[in-house]
Amino acid sequence: MRFERARRLMAEGGLGGLVATSYESVAHLSGATIMTQRFIPDRLAAVILPLEGDPTLVVCTVEEAQARRESRVRDIRAYVEFTESPIETIAGVIRERGLARARVGVEAKVLSMQHYQEISEFLEHALFESCDDLLGRLRMVKSEDEIELLGRAALSTDAAIRAAYDEAGVGTTDKEIADSIAIGIQRRGADSVAFLVLGAGPTASEAHPVALDRPLEPGDVVRCDVGGHYSGYYSDLARTAVVGAPTSAHRDLYERLWTIHEETISQAQPGIEAKELYFACEKAFKKCGMQLSLSHIGHSLGLGLHDAPILSPYDTTVLEEGMVLAIEPVHKDGGPIFHVEDLVVIAGDGPQILSRSSDWSELPVIGG
Amino acid sequence: MRFERARRLMAEGGLGGLVATSYESVAHLSGATIMTQRFIPDRLAAVILPLEGDPTLVVCTVEEAQARRESRVRDIRAYVEFTESPIETIAGVIRERGLARARVGVEAKVLSMQHYQEISEFLEHALFESCDDLLGRLRMVKSEDEIELLGRAALSTDAAIRAAYDEAGVGTTDKEIADSIAIGIQRRGADSVAFLVLGAGPTASEAHPVALDRPLEPGDVVRCDVGGHYSGYYSDLARTAVVGAPTSAHRDLYERLWTIHEETISQAQPGIEAKELYFACEKAFKKCGMQLSLSHIGHSLGLGLHDAPILSPYDTTVLEEGMVLAIEPVHKDGGPIFHVEDLVVIAGDGPQILSRSSDWSELPVIGG
Repeated sequence: MRFERARRLMAEGGLGGLVATSYESVAHLSGATIMTQRFIPDRLAAVILPLEGDPTLVVCTVEEAQARRESRVRDIRAYVEFTESPIETIAGVIRERGLARARVGVEAKVLSMQHYQEISEFLEHALFESCDDLLGRLRMVKSEDEIELLGRAALSTDAAIRAAYDEAGVGTTDKEIADSIAIGIQRRGADSVAFLVLGAGPTASEAHPVALDRPLEPGDVVRCDVGGHYSGYYSDLARTAVVGAPTSAHRDLYERLWTIHEETISQAQPGIEAKELYFACEKAFKKCGMQLSLSHIGHSLGLGLHDAPILSPYDTTVLEEGMVLAIEPVHKDGGPIFHVEDLVVIAGDGPQILSRSSDWSELPVIGG
Repeated sequence: MRFERARRLMAEGGLGGLVATSYESVAHLSGATIMTQRFIPDRLAAVILPLEGDPTLVVCTVEEAQARRESRVRDIRAYVEFTESPIETIAGVIRERGLARARVGVEAKVLSMQHYQEISEFLEHALFESCDDLLGRLRMVKSEDEIELLGRAALSTDAAIRAAYDEAGVGTTDKEIADSIAIGIQRRGADSVAFLVLGAGPTASEAHPVALDRPLEPGDVVRCDVGGHYSGYYSDLARTAVVGAPTSAHRDLYERLWTIHEETISQAQPGIEAKELYFACEKAFKKCGMQLSLSHIGHSLGLGLHDAPILSPYDTTVLEEGMVLAIEPVHKDGGPIFHVEDLVVIAGDGPQILSRSSDWSELPVIGG
């Protein structure tokens, strides 16, 4: 089914075959979620999909047992790391499939320069070109199972953040809140925490700070942006709170940001382009007397963290039912960042928010 | 100091400049630990180091505040994501430094094919070649501060594993042990968990399984391989245990593996080549009547997970004082994997083990 869709796109693009080498694409095409692809990029895994004929999964022998258990691709070739070249194995499969002189798609944003040079030497008559967009498009629309999984993941992460904010107070350190969020995510079904950003006080104006061992003071703005790994998929949510008694300026800023957030989400309808959602958000910022200062206001979420489409001023992807978007307006003016992020699925009867285990519409107060 | 070393190696290699784009190399050269380099590879960060003249750090405006706080490189150029091309910014700096026709090192194992093609178009007269080895060599020997940090990280992770194994018993699920390890790592000072492998029962023979919701049974072999992020550096340890009453075969296997482990560690002396340590381990396997079936028995650890040198049959790097190696013999024969991994610093007066918060020389028994 997913191979048929891929082949239709390949035929449209004039490709004789493709070689997927990202964690995301290998997982999507084969079903094998080989986590070391994220940490050890040298240990290449690849799906080779010819326009005609069977797909092949190439993995390191280290990952062979898992690949055989998980993969829907039946033809699996394993190479011995350091001794055998994964690129030579891949090139061999391309040759076998009669594609030595074909146009072959590769993930140009992911394949390393070294691997690209190596495969170009093995197959000097093949023409390698980017199929990043093709594979991005293939993964964009989620199945019901994927939406269910992403929803469970989002609710788990959201509940963990809420619990951590609820139990914190003046004097709690950034690190203690970060720990509490991480532990909550782990206990609520994540395989592990994927990333964990928490800023407050001196780091409240930075995009991706690591939590400090610094006790919270009244008036501090606390912002987290965190995600977990759930069966190979991501969660990704951001929540902002104020410690002690917020000022009216805090409340006003949060209220406006929330209005912008809700307005943007309501515009996430099938048929519009991704960039139109960016512009809708920009307009909502202006209407609230603020300025959108970031170059994107969200992204698709799934096997990848910043999957296509990206909600930037340049992405012309048309939104479709079944796309799952992390929508995240940010207020950034040099002072503490205010940032909210929710997960939304595009549907015919209006966008559905997947990520609210409780109500975040009013400014959350820590130790209030 | 690190720029001087880099420039000496660049001069030896005939490079007029280099462009570092990996998280590891950017962090090592500039001091800025930009964690999104790991998750969002499109959001390029780079250090450009000319043989003569000042280094430059290129980052996305999103990361600019953090970069300005952390970086020892003073010349920082920020690009607006999606609107400006990071490669164009990098190419501009190379031109400014008079390197438009020079030999320029790039991280060929890390730089994407797309970025490589783009930079080749901007600078058609420059000659780009791999400087992966050069940068790997630069990071290989650790400072005292780095060794201290890696030691603290290793002890924290080791203690978390020990505590999780101690509190587990028959009926505890894989996932509960994994959670307990992750929470322990988080509470013992990690910024977050980096990766978390736990196999038992049906997954005990796989290299990188995700923990299942399956209760442990007597006789199960449990193996974890986990690491945390600590101020930008990794921990990475593996420990194997048996549930309930181990058989004499379990005890015998573990005893032999531990003997091999200790023998290998004792051979980790300055002056030998990395591959000699592999062969020493292979010999120790044979002496114990077993076979080494993996293609490496460890790797350097630091800002990167599998840093150079790799303890494979092919790595001719000479071990030096101050290198920090994760040494990890594995017994793999189709049945449950037995795997132990410790962190060792190479020193003139013999290898020092950094990672044992308690004694693992006897087979750990869960619920014994």
